Amino acid sequence: MTLSDQTRTSLATVSTATLTTQLFKRGLRNLFVQNVRPLNPAAPRLVGEAFTLRYIPAREDIDHVGVFQDPEHPQRKAIETVPPGQVLVMDCRGDARAASGGGILLTRLMMRGVAGVVTDGGLRDAAEIAALDFPVYCAGPSAPLNLAHHHAVDFNQPIACGGVPVYPGDVVVGDTDGVVIVPQEPADEVARDAVEQERFETFVMEEVRGGRSIRGV
Amino acid sequence: MTLSDQTRTSLATVSTATLTTQLFKRGLRNLFVQNVRPLNPAAPRLVGEAFTLRYIPAREDIDHVGVFQDPEHPQRKAIETVPPGQVLVMDCRGDARAASGGGILLTRLMMRGVAGVVTDGGLRDAAEIAALDFPVYCAGPSAPLNLAHHHAVDFNQPIACGGVPVYPGDVVVGDTDGVVIVPQEPADEVARDAVEQERFETFVMEEVRGGRSIRGV
Amino acid sequence: MTLSDQTRTSLATVSTATLTTQLFKRGLRNLFVQNVRPLNPAAPRLVGEAFTLRYIPAREDIDHVGVFQDPEHPQRKAIETVPPGQVLVMDCRGDARAASGGGILLTRLMMRGVAGVVTDGGLRDAAEIAALDFPVYCAGPSAPLNLAHHHAVDFNQPIACGGVPVYPGDVVVGDTDGVVIVPQEPADEVARDAVEQERFETFVMEEVRGGRSIRGV
Amino acid sequence: MTLSDQTRTSLATVSTATLTTQLFKRGLRNLFVQNVRPLNPAAPRLVGEAFTLRYIPAREDIDHVGVFQDPEHPQRKAIETVPPGQVLVMDCRGDARAASGGGILLTRLMMRGVAGVVTDGGLRDAAEIAALDFPVYCAGPSAPLNLAHHHAVDFNQPIACGGVPVYPGDVVVGDTDGVVIVPQEPADEVARDAVEQERFETFVMEEVRGGRSIRGV
Amino acid sequence: MTLSDQTRTSLATVSTATLTTQLFKRGLRNLFVQNVRPLNPAAPRLVGEAFTLRYIPAREDIDHVGVFQDPEHPQRKAIETVPPGQVLVMDCRGDARAASGGGILLTRLMMRGVAGVVTDGGLRDAAEIAALDFPVYCAGPSAPLNLAHHHAVDFNQPIACGGVPVYPGDVVVGDTDGVVIVPQEPADEVARDAVEQERFETFVMEEVRGGRSIRGV
Amino acid sequence: MTLSDQTRTSLATVSTATLTTQLFKRGLRNLFVQNVRPLNPAAPRLVGEAFTLRYIPAREDIDHVGVFQDPEHPQRKAIETVPPGQVLVMDCRGDARAASGGGILLTRLMMRGVAGVVTDGGLRDAAEIAALDFPVYCAGPSAPLNLAHHHAVDFNQPIACGGVPVYPGDVVVGDTDGVVIVPQEPADEVARDAVEQERFETFVMEEVRGGRSIRGV
Repeated sequence: MTLSDQTRTSLATVSTATLTTQLFKRGLRNLFVQNVRPLNPAAPRLVGEAFTLRYIPAREDIDHVGVFQDPEHPQRKAIETVPPGQVLVMDCRGDARAASGGGILLTRLMMRGVAGVVTDGGLRDAAEIAALDFPVYCAGPSAPLNLAHHHAVDFNQPIACGGVPVYPGDVVVGDTDGVVIVPQEPADEVARDAVEQERFETFVMEEVRGGRSIRGV
Repeated sequence: MTLSDQTRTSLATVSTATLTTQLFKRGLRNLFVQNVRPLNPAAPRLVGEAFTLRYIPAREDIDHVGVFQDPEHPQRKAIETVPPGQVLVMDCRGDARAASGGGILLTRLMMRGVAGVVTDGGLRDAAEIAALDFPVYCAGPSAPLNLAHHHAVDFNQPIACGGVPVYPGDVVVGDTDGVVIVPQEPADEVARDAVEQERFETFVMEEVRGGRSIRGV
Repeated sequence: MTLSDQTRTSLATVSTATLTTQLFKRGLRNLFVQNVRPLNPAAPRLVGEAFTLRYIPAREDIDHVGVFQDPEHPQRKAIETVPPGQVLVMDCRGDARAASGGGILLTRLMMRGVAGVVTDGGLRDAAEIAALDFPVYCAGPSAPLNLAHHHAVDFNQPIACGGVPVYPGDVVVGDTDGVVIVPQEPADEVARDAVEQERFETFVMEEVRGGRSIRGV
Repeated sequence: MTLSDQTRTSLATVSTATLTTQLFKRGLRNLFVQNVRPLNPAAPRLVGEAFTLRYIPAREDIDHVGVFQDPEHPQRKAIETVPPGQVLVMDCRGDARAASGGGILLTRLMMRGVAGVVTDGGLRDAAEIAALDFPVYCAGPSAPLNLAHHHAVDFNQPIACGGVPVYPGDVVVGDTDGVVIVPQEPADEVARDAVEQERFETFVMEEVRGGRSIRGV
Repeated sequence: MTLSDQTRTSLATVSTATLTTQLFKRGLRNLFVQNVRPLNPAAPRLVGEAFTLRYIPAREDIDHVGVFQDPEHPQRKAIETVPPGQVLVMDCRGDARAASGGGILLTRLMMRGVAGVVTDGGLRDAAEIAALDFPVYCAGPSAPLNLAHHHAVDFNQPIACGGVPVYPGDVVVGDTDGVVIVPQEPADEVARDAVEQERFETFVMEEVRGGRSIRGV
Repeated sequence: MTLSDQTRTSLATVSTATLTTQLFKRGLRNLFVQNVRPLNPAAPRLVGEAFTLRYIPAREDIDHVGVFQDPEHPQRKAIETVPPGQVLVMDCRGDARAASGGGILLTRLMMRGVAGVVTDGGLRDAAEIAALDFPVYCAGPSAPLNLAHHHAVDFNQPIACGGVPVYPGDVVVGDTDGVVIVPQEPADEVARDAVEQERFETFVMEEVRGGRSIRGV
C-alpha cells in the first residue's frame, strides 16, 4: 500500500495534535514520538512514509573511522536507499550523547528528495542543518560522531523511536509540536477525519475568540 | 487575603532571581518551579494568585473522548472558574507525554482575563499558544490530548507543580528564567524588599560595568 | 604549556563536531560536555584554556547569604582570579535546580577579559546574560541563588563538567552544537588536523550539493 | 459497593501477573504500581480496598516538627481513620528522598487491623517494618522524616501512586512481583476469571515440566 | 565459530570483574550489562553463547492477547529455537514496566537445556523463577504481561541490552555482580588470561589478608 | 576536634531515622546519602569520621591499567592513608556504571582497622565483600574496573556523596536504612538528644503495641 496524494495533502494541513486525537479515538495512545523537537521550525511540514534505520551501542573494535570506506556500511547505504518522498526515521535508543548524522548526510538526503528526518539521537552541525529548507527532528544538537556511541545495524525493519513503534511504511507527520506516527492501515480515514475535526475546531476557536465558553465542547 | 495592587505592581518589575533570594533569606529554599519554561518569552510578565488544577494518571475506561460533553468535567469547569487576574497552575506530575491544554483552552483563559498559565505537563498547539499575548509556562510542546495520560480530578486544592508546593492564593511570578511561587503571607514584604534589592543591584551592575570587582558584594 | 595563538585561531574556525572526530581518532571518546547549551548562539565562538571551579551540595548552616561578605569566598575569588583569555568551567554535578551565577558575575567576567563560561548547573538572569557579547553555556535558566544547592569549595583543580573530565589548562571550544574539551598535549596537532579535515569536508559538501553520493566517504 | 468475601478470598490466591492479564483483556493497561517492592516478602498476601493519603512537597515554614502535636494533622488522622481490612495507599510523587512513615506508624496500622500499606515514597525503620507480619510495599528504605520533603494534604481522594491512578475503594492486591490496582466495578469478574486462568496455567505448567512446547499457548 | 569446552569451563570459574578487566586491556570498555541483576543468586554460574530476541514498543491494535495463538509468534518461536547451552538475551529497551517473560516460559527454556536468560526488561512470577535452578538476570520483577509494552519483532539479530551491544554468538557470562558480554573473537584468549589474573589475585588477597599493603599492586 | 568515645558509642545505638530527625530540628534537611544501600545488612553498625576520596570521569589516555604501578596513585594512597576508625567516603558522581573498589581493596581497608566504606558508585566482587564482617554501602554491584569511568583525583577534600555534602571529619553513621552524615560541630549534642528521643520512642512503641493511638504524638 502506498500513501495516496490526497492523504498526503490532507496530512500536511492538519496538526499533530489533531492526529493524536484521531488515533486516540481508535484506541492508539502511544504514537507521539517523545523527546524530539524540530531543528528548524521554519521548515516545511513533514509528511512521508517511514524508512527506518536501526543503531545499537558501538563497540570500540568494530566502530572505528575506517568503516565508512565500506560502501555497504548500513548507515551510508540507508541514506542512499531511502526513496524520495519518504522519511528517514532512526532508532538511537533515545541516546543523544552522540550524533546520528550531520550537515553532509542531511544535505545528501535533502538532495535525494527525501521528505525529512526523525531521530531520537542527536545531530551534529545543528546550526547548518537548521538553515536547510528541510524538516528535521532530533533529541538535540550533539557534536560527537555516531561511532562514539552508535553502530548502524540494519534498515527497513520495525524499530523504536522516542518510545514509539515505527513500522516501515507508517506515515510520519511532523509540525512544531513534534512528530506523530500514523499507521498505514487507517491513514486515509484518519486524514479525512482530522480535516473534518479541524474544520469544527476552527469554528469553535472563532466562537471562543468571540467570548464563548468551552463547557461541554 | 488578596494580592494588593501595589504588591502586584512591584512583583511585575522584579526578577524571579531576586524573589528566590528574598525567599531564601526567609528560609524558603524550594519555591522555584523546576523544568518549566516560557512558551513565549515576548509575552507580558506573569503575576497573579494561583488557582490550581490537579491531574492523576488516566484510566482507559474513565478517560474517553466522551467526557468533555459533561459541562461539569473538572478541567473544563476549572477553566471557566479561574477568576480574572489569577493564574491557572496545573499539577501533571511532571509528565509531559501528553498535553494539559491546547490552543482553544488557552485562548478561552486569555479571553476570560486570566493572568497566565503554568503547567508541569505539556501543551499542544504550542506555536499557536506562543503567538498569544499571554504568559504561558510548560514542560514543553506535546501533541497528545490530555486524556492519553491525565485525568483532571479536582481544583483549588494544594498541589505539587514542578517539585514545588502550590497553595491556592499563593502568588505566582514568572519571567524568562521561569516561575517562582511566593506564599501569600510574606508576599507584601517580599515584594517590597525585592524592589529594594534590585535598586542596589542596579547600582552594583553599573559599578561592575565601570570595572569594579565583585569581591565582598 | 600555553595555548599558542595559531592553535587558538585554528580552533576558533573549526566546529566541535570536527574536533570530536579528531579526538575519537586519538582514542578519546568522552570529551563532549553533555547537557549544556549556548545561552546566546549569536555570541562569538568560545576558545580558551579551562580555569575550573568546583561546587559541592550546600549545607544550610554553612551556606547563608552572609558568606559573600567574605572577600575570600571561593566563588567570588575564582571570578576575580580567572586570567583574561581563559574560560571559567564550573562543576555543579549537573544539578540545574539552582544558579551557578547571574548577570552581575557574568558581566564582571566579561569585563575582566575572560573568554567565556561553561557550567553544568543553571544560570539566573538568563535573558540578561544572553544579551551580552560573551559566550556562555549552561544546563538552562534557573533563578534560585547558588547557595540554595551549591557550595563553592575550591578552584583550579580537576573537575567533572557535563560528564567529562576537565583539567585546568585543557582547551575549551564551543559552538552552537555545544562544548568540547581538547586536552592540552594534543591540542596543536588536533587543531591542525581539524583544519585539514574541514577543508576536505567543505569539498565533499560542495560535491554533495552538486548531487554526489556519500557512499564510501 | 464493598469487596465481597469471595472476591477477597479469590484475589488472595491469584498472582498480580494473572490480574494484569485479566485487566489487559479489559483494555486496562496501566494498573501495576511501578517502582515499589515488598519490604517483607515473607508477609501474608496483600488484599484490601484502597484508602488513600496524598502528600505534596514540604514547605519549611509549614512543615516543622511541631505539626504532629495537632491531632487533626492529615497523616496522623488518616492513620487513625483507615478502616480495618483496607489498605493505606500513599501518593509521594514517587519521591523516596524522605520517609512516608516508620516503625511506630506502621505498627499502629497493623494493630488497627489495616490490611497493609503501599507508598511510592520511602519508609524509615525498614528492618523493623520488614519484621512485622504485615504486607508493606515502598520505593525503598529512606531515613529522613516525611516533613523533610512531604506535606500530608488530604485523604480518601483519588491519587497517583507509582504512575497509576488509585480511587478510594479500588482493590489493592500485592505479591512478590509488586502491587496491582483492580478497579471496583470489574473486581468480582476479574477475580473469577483470574482463578480460572490460573487453573489453566497450572495445567500448562505441568505439561511444560513434562516437556511440552509453549508454541501457540 | 563455537565456544570451546575449555573456554566455557574457564569462563565459569572467573568473575565478571576479572573479565571486564581483561576486556578493558583490549580497549573494550562497554560490555557490562547495566541495570540487570540476578533473580536467584543461588543459581549456577551463567555461561553460554548469546541467542538474541528483540522487542519494540507495543501497539494496541497489533499486540492483543490473541497473538499467542500464532505458533510463529517471534517470542514463542525464539523460545523454542534457542539451542541448548545458549543464553537467551532480550532487548526490552531497558523498559521494566512490563515483563518479558514469566514462570512458564522460563521453565520451558530450562527444560530445553538453555543455559540461562538475560533481559533488560522485567520478569513476572519472579519468586517462582527465583526458585528454579536456572540463572536469570533482569531489571526487576514486573507483573504486566509483555504485550502491555513490548512487541517481539525478530531474533538472532544484533541487539542492545542494558546499554551494551550483543551480537549473536557473543559469550554471555554472569555472576552475582551481573552480566558481561565477551565478544567471540577474543573469547579464548580472554578466558585464558582471566584464569591467570585470578591466580595472581588469589595470591594478592592472601597477602592482603596477611597484612600487606596494596600500594603499587 | 575528634569524635569522643561517648558520642561514638551513642551514635552506634541510635537509628539513622532518629539522627535525621535531630538534624532536621537543627535546620539540616539534606544529610541522608541518597541511593546507597548496605551490601551486608548483617555487618556491624557503621560509625566513624569521614575520610574522603574524589573521582572525576576517566580519560582513556590517562586512565590505563599501568597507573596502579605508581605507589602514589591517589586511590591506592588514600586506601593506605585512612586512619583506623575512620570511614572512607567516595564521590563517584552517583555513577555506578563502574566499580570504585573490589574485594582486595575492601579487605585491605578492613585489615587496616578502617571503620567502613560508603560510595555512591558501584563495587565489584559484591558477594565477596558482603561476606566480610565490615559495613559497606554502595549504589550497587558493578563489575567494571574503576578506570573505565572513574579517575581518582584527590583525597580528604570536601566532596559530594549521594547528593550530600561531606566534609573530612564529619561523622558517618549507617544502619539498614542507609547512611547519614552528622556534621562535627553538633555531633555530641545530636548524639545525646538522639538517645533521649529513642528512649521516648521505645515508650511510644510499647504503648502503640498495647493499642494506643498515634494522634498528637
